[in-house]
Amino acid sequence: MKLVAKYIDVDAGEFTAIMHDDDCREIGVREQDRVKVKRHGNEITAILLTTDSAVAKGEIGLLGKAFNRMGIQPMEEVEVICTPKPDSIGHIKKKMRGEELSTEEIRGLVQDISNRNLSPVEMSAYVTSVYINGMNIRETADLTQAMVETGERIEFDNPVYDFHSVGGCPGNKVTLLVVPIVAAAGLMIPKTSSRAISSAAGTADIVEVFANVDFDASGLKSMAESVGGTIAWGGSMNIAPADDLIIKVEYPLGIDPHAQLLASVMSKKKAVGAKFLVMDIPMGENTKVPDMETARAYARDFIDLGEKLDMRVECAITYGGQPVGRAVGPALEAREAIAILEGRDQPRSVIEKACGLAGMLLEMGGIPSGEEKARELLESGKALAKFREIVVAQGGSPDISSGDMPVGEHTREILATSAGYVSGINNRSVVRIARAAGSPKDKGAGLELTRKRGDSVEKGDVLMTIHADNEAKLERAVAEARKLQPVAIEGMILSKVPSFKRI
Amino acid sequence: MKLVAKYIDVDAGEFTAIMHDDDCREIGVREQDRVKVKRHGNEITAILLTTDSAVAKGEIGLLGKAFNRMGIQPMEEVEVICTPKPDSIGHIKKKMRGEELSTEEIRGLVQDISNRNLSPVEMSAYVTSVYINGMNIRETADLTQAMVETGERIEFDNPVYDFHSVGGCPGNKVTLLVVPIVAAAGLMIPKTSSRAISSAAGTADIVEVFANVDFDASGLKSMAESVGGTIAWGGSMNIAPADDLIIKVEYPLGIDPHAQLLASVMSKKKAVGAKFLVMDIPMGENTKVPDMETARAYARDFIDLGEKLDMRVECAITYGGQPVGRAVGPALEAREAIAILEGRDQPRSVIEKACGLAGMLLEMGGIPSGEEKARELLESGKALAKFREIVVAQGGSPDISSGDMPVGEHTREILATSAGYVSGINNRSVVRIARAAGSPKDKGAGLELTRKRGDSVEKGDVLMTIHADNEAKLERAVAEARKLQPVAIEGMILSKVPSFKRI
Repeated sequence: MKLVAKYIDVDAGEFTAIMHDDDCREIGVREQDRVKVKRHGNEITAILLTTDSAVAKGEIGLLGKAFNRMGIQPMEEVEVICTPKPDSIGHIKKKMRGEELSTEEIRGLVQDISNRNLSPVEMSAYVTSVYINGMNIRETADLTQAMVETGERIEFDNPVYDFHSVGGCPGNKVTLLVVPIVAAAGLMIPKTSSRAISSAAGTADIVEVFANVDFDASGLKSMAESVGGTIAWGGSMNIAPADDLIIKVEYPLGIDPHAQLLASVMSKKKAVGAKFLVMDIPMGENTKVPDMETARAYARDFIDLGEKLDMRVECAITYGGQPVGRAVGPALEAREAIAILEGRDQPRSVIEKACGLAGMLLEMGGIPSGEEKARELLESGKALAKFREIVVAQGGSPDISSGDMPVGEHTREILATSAGYVSGINNRSVVRIARAAGSPKDKGAGLELTRKRGDSVEKGDVLMTIHADNEAKLERAVAEARKLQPVAIEGMILSKVPSFKRI
Repeated sequence: MKLVAKYIDVDAGEFTAIMHDDDCREIGVREQDRVKVKRHGNEITAILLTTDSAVAKGEIGLLGKAFNRMGIQPMEEVEVICTPKPDSIGHIKKKMRGEELSTEEIRGLVQDISNRNLSPVEMSAYVTSVYINGMNIRETADLTQAMVETGERIEFDNPVYDFHSVGGCPGNKVTLLVVPIVAAAGLMIPKTSSRAISSAAGTADIVEVFANVDFDASGLKSMAESVGGTIAWGGSMNIAPADDLIIKVEYPLGIDPHAQLLASVMSKKKAVGAKFLVMDIPMGENTKVPDMETARAYARDFIDLGEKLDMRVECAITYGGQPVGRAVGPALEAREAIAILEGRDQPRSVIEKACGLAGMLLEMGGIPSGEEKARELLESGKALAKFREIVVAQGGSPDISSGDMPVGEHTREILATSAGYVSGINNRSVVRIARAAGSPKDKGAGLELTRKRGDSVEKGDVLMTIHADNEAKLERAVAEARKLQPVAIEGMILSKVPSFKRI
């Protein structure tokens, strides 16, 4: 059927065409079917929407990307043919039925995902099926491999070390310490990080306070080769592009299928050629990993998957039941991490964790007593020197200092309303307060905890200081803090004697 | 946030808004989140798409329905607020985890579906979860009830009888006989039918050859009250509107979750107040129901579900392994059915089936020896008279005759290439040939079988005649027939004696 092409200014992820009901009936297609659109040797396959008003009979509307890819003028005539569904739909249905997918089937599926050849309905059926029916380690390894193969890859001459945290614990700025320590020890660590989705600050959000994070694959490669490490954003490289498209569907459903989470992490490491990987699995109340059993299952799967992908993986199950360190929010976390590198600040939880994790990587690289060596590199200032090299390579200042971080100037202290011991700090509440203050968009927004679990508190003591860029956001965050009461204080009523007790 | 509204000429099913990435970041929303759009007391909740080009910063694009519902002018300013997900998302996740949903949860879900408050991603997750994890009869009854309550209902003073075929078997024109027989017996049967989706002809497609099928609920009610029965199209009434929206998502995935199929059928019957229902379950190769065990399970579920919905349901498991009767395609099926009513044609399979099904309904209505009575109504011409009343009520001619049906004038006979007995006729191939000929869009297109299973055939005998509106479609259908060989002939080589056999 010949139809006149009309430009529709909406940029859908997948190629989308809109045809009039009568024309659809004429060539026997329905909404969500696929049509091939041809003109001048150009050809796309688009998913069909139907209408009785948005385009007229004899017209075909092509949404943003689909129109542009055709390289035609508005109102040019195109040839439209009904075309069958991709085989991937059959593979999705196989997973719906709970069957195992073959290597070839998984590859076809990931190719169709990264070519944006599946509609939101089909993508959602895939994600939901994997959430419910799962994938075994073989399928997950094939999924990872296919995600790597459909994107860009970086190859290094030297063995590549890498580090990843499963996340779920606010204030986890350890990447800012692990990378310079490992690089200072002479191991190559081209680390890419993510931005916050629902957290208060991703590592990329923190680094952006003092350096660029937005590089392409060749930029990452040349930086890593010149200074031995990077702390960049993974999102602007075309690494495992299927992952972002899958996450786009997981997000509205609020699900993160186990196999997909594993493949998401491992594909990014595999794409930069990582041979040695340390995984941080924060475990505890209000994290992604509630108990030791779940944590061990994650660890086992990461290690098994690494084996299938020719990577050596070691896992550290860490305590994530309260924020790591004191600061939460991009600039505040940057300030805390840099102060540690400068030797000006000594929050034990951050230093212990960073040196422990870096030490595991050093030992994988053949350096004995890794944790002691890591601490030595930190205390000697060598890690700071390497950090500055990395910052300069990423376009930041050579004189970077913790004192320069632009923390929010509108502050309010939250005080203890009773005396006792801090029995817990709720991660999710901390994140909600930091986000109410403007984090991660306002770089200076967030909070600093002055008391942590186990600390004793007098009534009126400062529990935390909230930072924001303006009074309105500060008030919003303070209101959240008052409502959520993130710092739980357990009164120590051990000495009181009840009046009816007679001795 | 105040944004300027821009009209986007695409009519998505759900309310959809498009905002610039920077504005999204400003108010902390992501693609697939929801925003409330307000102006002049009008307010809608829309699902968000994000862009860096389709709308500018400071603008919000509202797709067709969303813009129109707001009742504003293009470029008017609207207030945009981030708003939480509906509770239904939580209920979908509960079904994903394989848990049972409460009556309230199912009601909320169906309300959000029929209010078009769920995105394609969310709808697909729902359908996929129900496909994988199923629903028990209590949940299915609640689903049916909620689907009825979110649409229009018709109430009759007299008890309502109804009939439904699960489908899957081509040529099943029995509704055209069952309805007039039952109505002629004095029972009220306000039947609604569907159009073909993937089949060669739905009952509504057939009736449309000689009468109108497109009525609203009050039209259906007044027709049924005046002549005792209808054979209308269910699609244009606002009966159980959630069903159509769910089917729109099932279609691209090619799935039909059991619970959803049950609820789809039963909601339409419940909405017209049916108290007595006969279900036809065609069973056999290349139908929806492959074996007796599956058929019995369907029957049991329909009966149980009926009990929970205060309907008496009886099921007939019928043989569906080859087409019913000889004709497949709207006008050809109309001609065959009317010829039977006129007493001009006697294809036993159609008459037996129609009288058997009608007889079950008559007995439910207290008329003894139902099948005999049905046959009597058919043979006496009373069914034909009632049929004509119904046709006239639906705007057709009072002189309707089988000879008037406009069957396709371009015909071709398909001949047997060998002698033997017909061992089977493939339903799916028959449908593909009829559709290639133009059915159901071209009313006259389709085919007529001249041999059925068990018939003996000489080489060169006519197996079927294909009808089409033009030569091109006829050639396409003939090519399909040559390729698919829908009529299998088993050579009867019983009398040959092999040469090496010595007696």
